[in-house]
Amino acid sequence: MAHREPSGPTVVTGGAGAIGSVLVGRLLADGEEVRVVDNLSSGRREHLPTHPKLSVVVGDLTDPPSFEAALEGAGTVWHLAANPDVRLGIEQPRIDLDRGTIATFHLLEAARRHDVRRVRFSSSSVVYGHPRTFPTPEEYGPLLPESQYGAAKLACEALMSAYAHDYGLTVHLFRFANIVGPAMTHGILFDLFEKLRQDPSRLEVLGDGRQAKSYLRAEECVAGMQFAAARTAETVNVFNLGAIDRISVREIAEKVVAAHGGRARIDFTGGERGWVGDVPQQLLAIEKIRRLGWTPELTSARAVDRTIEEMVESRRVRP
Amino acid sequence: MAHREPSGPTVVTGGAGAIGSVLVGRLLADGEEVRVVDNLSSGRREHLPTHPKLSVVVGDLTDPPSFEAALEGAGTVWHLAANPDVRLGIEQPRIDLDRGTIATFHLLEAARRHDVRRVRFSSSSVVYGHPRTFPTPEEYGPLLPESQYGAAKLACEALMSAYAHDYGLTVHLFRFANIVGPAMTHGILFDLFEKLRQDPSRLEVLGDGRQAKSYLRAEECVAGMQFAAARTAETVNVFNLGAIDRISVREIAEKVVAAHGGRARIDFTGGERGWVGDVPQQLLAIEKIRRLGWTPELTSARAVDRTIEEMVESRRVRP
Repeated sequence: MAHREPSGPTVVTGGAGAIGSVLVGRLLADGEEVRVVDNLSSGRREHLPTHPKLSVVVGDLTDPPSFEAALEGAGTVWHLAANPDVRLGIEQPRIDLDRGTIATFHLLEAARRHDVRRVRFSSSSVVYGHPRTFPTPEEYGPLLPESQYGAAKLACEALMSAYAHDYGLTVHLFRFANIVGPAMTHGILFDLFEKLRQDPSRLEVLGDGRQAKSYLRAEECVAGMQFAAARTAETVNVFNLGAIDRISVREIAEKVVAAHGGRARIDFTGGERGWVGDVPQQLLAIEKIRRLGWTPELTSARAVDRTIEEMVESRRVRP
Repeated sequence: MAHREPSGPTVVTGGAGAIGSVLVGRLLADGEEVRVVDNLSSGRREHLPTHPKLSVVVGDLTDPPSFEAALEGAGTVWHLAANPDVRLGIEQPRIDLDRGTIATFHLLEAARRHDVRRVRFSSSSVVYGHPRTFPTPEEYGPLLPESQYGAAKLACEALMSAYAHDYGLTVHLFRFANIVGPAMTHGILFDLFEKLRQDPSRLEVLGDGRQAKSYLRAEECVAGMQFAAARTAETVNVFNLGAIDRISVREIAEKVVAAHGGRARIDFTGGERGWVGDVPQQLLAIEKIRRLGWTPELTSARAVDRTIEEMVESRRVRP
């Protein structure tokens, strides 16, 4: 029942990143011609295969001439490029405005000029701020993000919606839970293993450990996006994407310590939040995509387990 | 029961505009020291009185050095500056990003540097897009604006929320219905009278005339903001501000024609919307501010009537 994707190359911004590279692999496997636009600030060229139908433009969305040609003739843009680290915005408030909101504006302007018809966007659960409803549905309001990262994600959603209505695009807004996978260059698993590498005897964990969030594997995230995008075509389509449950930071820390040989002592810095702007509780309602027929296979704990296993196997960590 | 406003001058961006100048008058009447920041692009110096406690900085929020000094020692900022014309964004998609989102970012950065504790923002009903619920409450979601203007208002709300949480500000977000008053330099009444001035025999009205929205007088809008701001102090406080009812574009056109001598023929251009990005139906739920103890005195029809009377009396129109 999936709609046939019309022809024309598919552009993936942030395509060399931990989620983008998984998407690129799936699009190539589906036979599509793929153009990656990535400034390689956190993405890595080695995340991408060499493939006759793949081209990589090292361009920056804040500099339209550097990427604009990639949109020529494109039918669909998946917009995944962003500053990936929520915490950076506290010290550098401009980074999410520049790499999120303004970058997205330039991308949408280019999409309009090149008559791209479909844009799909990696938004985030952080647009909900600190919601009073768990699991949090797509209709939740008011949307009061608590970080510059979250503000930029909501600003990008708003721009996408305006462009869809004013210029005839179809947009999909995917609000991600925490996404985990082997290619991550940031995030809790990356951070905890990095800390243990520096001091194998002690693991400092931000907050009181009771922060609890839902974790979804990058490949499930990509599968969910593709599933929903192929089956919905409203002017604006909003979907939460997360696991069916959540896991606490304490449990994650214990899993990481166990995978690292079990010797480290865990010290919590205390406080409800891991950092200023942290959202300590997150559980997304995923009934909307489940009603379409897609449910993630892994619980949050299993998504974390698998990622830890991969990080150990790939020798990025030494147990 | 109102909180006493702490000392320190009060800054009003867009203070020379149709709403800002009314606010400035009330703040001066309350004995406050007021600093207006306005680039006079749509505001007018003659909207403001000469007053020993009023200073006017002709500055632009997109150019921080031009206004930053006005925030020195300020306790409260009312941020009303914006591109006032929703329709401009269709042809000039960058105008609301620049004068809305980026300008607001610069203002918030300056507020943070100068340790301003309170920021109040003129948001808009257009953040709701085309809602399915009328009257629309503050908790409505998802927020999918249909114009660049609306996208910028939502982006500004998101920035305000992030700054409030991350840097300890208290912010108020006021989502306005259509605001009318004698000093307007845009909007439906201004437009319709301008059309009749050019051709007194015929009044072209955009859309099918069935668009229906709530209209609030500028002085009631200002009174409502002051009332709510003095009584609420959450980190982020969101309030709708509108009349208790709505009025159709057809009724407004008939009132304008009657005030102009009753001779013009009304021609509707047709279609559900007045223009691309227009929100044809708007009625805000105002129970939240009513529960605090404030209700607008005028219906939408009376707010429109009074404004038409003033426009006729001030000879801005010739019946």
